[in-house]
Amino acid sequence: MKEIKSKFDIFRQKVHIIIYGTNTTAGKLFDIVLLGLILLSVLMVMLETVDTVDQKYHNILLACEWVITIFFTIEYILRIISIKTPSKYIFSFYGIIDFIAILPMYLSFFFGGAQILSVVRALRLLRIFRILNLVHFTGQASELRLAIKTSRTKIIVFIYFVLVVCVLLGSLMYVIEGDESGFTSIPVSIYWCIVTLTTVGYGDIHPITPSGQIIASFIMILGYGIIAVPTGIVTAEFAQNRRKKGLFSFEKENPCPNCGVDDHKEKAGYCYNCGNKL
Amino acid sequence: MKEIKSKFDIFRQKVHIIIYGTNTTAGKLFDIVLLGLILLSVLMVMLETVDTVDQKYHNILLACEWVITIFFTIEYILRIISIKTPSKYIFSFYGIIDFIAILPMYLSFFFGGAQILSVVRALRLLRIFRILNLVHFTGQASELRLAIKTSRTKIIVFIYFVLVVCVLLGSLMYVIEGDESGFTSIPVSIYWCIVTLTTVGYGDIHPITPSGQIIASFIMILGYGIIAVPTGIVTAEFAQNRRKKGLFSFEKENPCPNCGVDDHKEKAGYCYNCGNKL
Amino acid sequence: MKEIKSKFDIFRQKVHIIIYGTNTTAGKLFDIVLLGLILLSVLMVMLETVDTVDQKYHNILLACEWVITIFFTIEYILRIISIKTPSKYIFSFYGIIDFIAILPMYLSFFFGGAQILSVVRALRLLRIFRILNLVHFTGQASELRLAIKTSRTKIIVFIYFVLVVCVLLGSLMYVIEGDESGFTSIPVSIYWCIVTLTTVGYGDIHPITPSGQIIASFIMILGYGIIAVPTGIVTAEFAQNRRKKGLFSFEKENPCPNCGVDDHKEKAGYCYNCGNKL
Amino acid sequence: MKEIKSKFDIFRQKVHIIIYGTNTTAGKLFDIVLLGLILLSVLMVMLETVDTVDQKYHNILLACEWVITIFFTIEYILRIISIKTPSKYIFSFYGIIDFIAILPMYLSFFFGGAQILSVVRALRLLRIFRILNLVHFTGQASELRLAIKTSRTKIIVFIYFVLVVCVLLGSLMYVIEGDESGFTSIPVSIYWCIVTLTTVGYGDIHPITPSGQIIASFIMILGYGIIAVPTGIVTAEFAQNRRKKGLFSFEKENPCPNCGVDDHKEKAGYCYNCGNKL
Repeated sequence: MKEIKSKFDIFRQKVHIIIYGTNTTAGKLFDIVLLGLILLSVLMVMLETVDTVDQKYHNILLACEWVITIFFTIEYILRIISIKTPSKYIFSFYGIIDFIAILPMYLSFFFGGAQILSVVRALRLLRIFRILNLVHFTGQASELRLAIKTSRTKIIVFIYFVLVVCVLLGSLMYVIEGDESGFTSIPVSIYWCIVTLTTVGYGDIHPITPSGQIIASFIMILGYGIIAVPTGIVTAEFAQNRRKKGLFSFEKENPCPNCGVDDHKEKAGYCYNCGNKL
Repeated sequence: MKEIKSKFDIFRQKVHIIIYGTNTTAGKLFDIVLLGLILLSVLMVMLETVDTVDQKYHNILLACEWVITIFFTIEYILRIISIKTPSKYIFSFYGIIDFIAILPMYLSFFFGGAQILSVVRALRLLRIFRILNLVHFTGQASELRLAIKTSRTKIIVFIYFVLVVCVLLGSLMYVIEGDESGFTSIPVSIYWCIVTLTTVGYGDIHPITPSGQIIASFIMILGYGIIAVPTGIVTAEFAQNRRKKGLFSFEKENPCPNCGVDDHKEKAGYCYNCGNKL
Repeated sequence: MKEIKSKFDIFRQKVHIIIYGTNTTAGKLFDIVLLGLILLSVLMVMLETVDTVDQKYHNILLACEWVITIFFTIEYILRIISIKTPSKYIFSFYGIIDFIAILPMYLSFFFGGAQILSVVRALRLLRIFRILNLVHFTGQASELRLAIKTSRTKIIVFIYFVLVVCVLLGSLMYVIEGDESGFTSIPVSIYWCIVTLTTVGYGDIHPITPSGQIIASFIMILGYGIIAVPTGIVTAEFAQNRRKKGLFSFEKENPCPNCGVDDHKEKAGYCYNCGNKL
Repeated sequence: MKEIKSKFDIFRQKVHIIIYGTNTTAGKLFDIVLLGLILLSVLMVMLETVDTVDQKYHNILLACEWVITIFFTIEYILRIISIKTPSKYIFSFYGIIDFIAILPMYLSFFFGGAQILSVVRALRLLRIFRILNLVHFTGQASELRLAIKTSRTKIIVFIYFVLVVCVLLGSLMYVIEGDESGFTSIPVSIYWCIVTLTTVGYGDIHPITPSGQIIASFIMILGYGIIAVPTGIVTAEFAQNRRKKGLFSFEKENPCPNCGVDDHKEKAGYCYNCGNKL
């Protein structure tokens, strides 16, 4: 009995190294195959919605999807089995995504068309960051994350302002333009205002009266101007994080034992202030 | 008589704490309910303009709006009563908005459709910044405000330039393209030029002659280039404000034991204020 | 004879003060009236091209334009007379604009419709910067000018690259999409590519084949990415100019007489390095 | 025999100076003529695709193209002959472009219409940077290149995120909007999502259901916000490179009289390298 358990433990350990590890050849291979399958799976869900492709290859696509889904299900079970505390994986970000990724296909038994939801598998593509797991990439991603995180509040305040402005200007345009130009209701006008302010400009709705066009011009210039705000926020964050990092790595490393000045160049051999040997 | 007055004073004080204060539970609750009602009210004005919704629920919407308007009216009166110097509130930014927010419904007695103007209530949503009243949020908002304020003049100069350019290029396009492409007059051409320069690009008017398309391309690249200007302005402001602030907050680490001044440079060996050794 | 000359000289001086000066009340008034007339004139040229307005008020508009043109002509002559070296004014930036501004109306005798060119009077609106002549505004404008000037070469290099990319990608789209989608020739495809890359996106021409849409997506993301480049250039210039200015005004003002360290705070009373009284 | 070889060597040398050199008058003239011909050639390939032009001038355009192609072929052969190690040129960036530039015309013998590919000659226009070969321009271009290079990884990470977001949001819109609005398949919806997120907004496909418009608004604001990220990245790189460079170029003012090192801090009193008093 004990031997069986021990064998199972060895199996678990091996699986753990292959599935979670990225240092062994098998582990790397597994990750690359997995990523390839995720990509393939997402592509197939997409293609299934293209009528011309679906009519020709419906059965092949469906078969492939089932094969991949079963593979993902096995992988999911193995992940749970091979980890010490399964709940830690199950309720982690990637664990939840992995579960959601296999759910739609099984749901499609009960609800026709539910397999379209399999497209959420695209989220699994974020796993690439774990696979690469390179200091370089992680550093880059974390710098991005830090800049976004620290500027989050300011961006929320900014978007709140923008939305209030859109409600007011959208309503104004509704009053001015009326139904003929497509401004059929205030919500539609607000939608148009967002389309304009963000400089997307579909052209499905556009002002036709002179006064409407004047206000639209004002909104556009406003949008042109305020796009500077989030850019300014994020850039300042980037620059500051960069500067901080730069400051600490570049300087403040060898204070002069004589006068205490510490912002020497890294290659400095003598204190620039008192000439003392460092 | 005096007792009555005193009772009224107590009532005023209580109302003041609830309406203006944000520290008590009642005060917080009041603010949240108020914000919810403002949001609800704005949503209802919006929905009233959607034909399909209005046909079904016209009476319900109207009734709700009246209830909310009456509540806002009572709130407005209480705000005036419970403050020491009512004129201070009445002519403040929020006071004027509060008044304008209740006006349209009463005007709708005399002018049909005036209730659409109730959408200005959206401005009351800015009250959220007072309600949150958190140092964090206020700090963020004030940083935004400061950056916009200091870069205001430069942005006005910039927009003035852009408008003069639009007048000239718009007229040029009017001469080149003519009526067939939709460039029916100089004002319309200027409108098109703003639509293009701000990269909105509705497509309701667009050049069809080769020379018109060449000039349009030039305008687009110009617009693509000059969008950098407001961004550059605002970013530089942010970065500078950040740097200044960073300088002061960063350094508050070693207060002078003699005079207490604490914004020394990190490398300072002597207090810059009293010359005491740190 | 001499007296007449002297009288004329006094007249010239008075005119000079009114026309060129901005310090006297008369000078200020003249400038404001002039600016108003320029604005009015530009507006009237615009309105003349709007059919509905022109049909009603053609004669009034024309009469007004002639009155303003004659006023501008007189102003132009006075400017030449009242200045010491007329050639300096005539061939200056503003002098040439002033001349071009009055020319079209006189040309309209010989060429019908030439008065539309009067819209170049909009250039005279730039005179506002001379009228304001405030240190503040001039400073702001010159900061803008400096940032644009120093980043000019980089922006030219950038636009050259973008145009070469547009030629290549435009041609590619012509080969892929063909006539049906509106990509009727390579120049048109290049025009479309510029419309897309600058994120204007009229929609008059748009890809309909899957491969065309994939390449278009690539162009859009490219455009989204490279918009960062001119912004980055200009912002870096702004920040640097700001920093330089900040550096010199903020610090480097009172070097310590004892140890020579000179980056003291402005309010510093003692050297942070050696504690010597400044 | 030897004399002939020697004559050929002299010829090779002369050709080398003219073709590769930019210092002699002949070399400069050759470069300018070459650039003009490249531009002319690209223009003619473009014009050939414009029906109205092609019908009139087909033979002239074709003849010119052949003349230029033969000139380019001779130039290509001369470049190979006149260089010491031909393989170095042939497999260099410009060498490959030069070869590709002449290929299509010869291919047009076998495949009709292949001459359209001659448009790749536009790549030869990048040669301008070698022709200008000015320290100034090269410096500007290299600064651009450096900023793009150092921010490359971050931008790839960013685009990967954006694409995953587009897959998810595009699929969501496909489910919500359906065929009627033009969201005929998930790939098309993703295409629409990229068009929207990058603020291009053709308008060929646009949401018509209220819920679709709400999600579209969300995507637009998201796109408006995240455009800040690449801008922030590139700007921070520019600013940092600038700062670094600024630091070094700025300080090259007082070289050490002892060891000659010249990148001292401005406030330095002693050489950081040898401790000598400055």
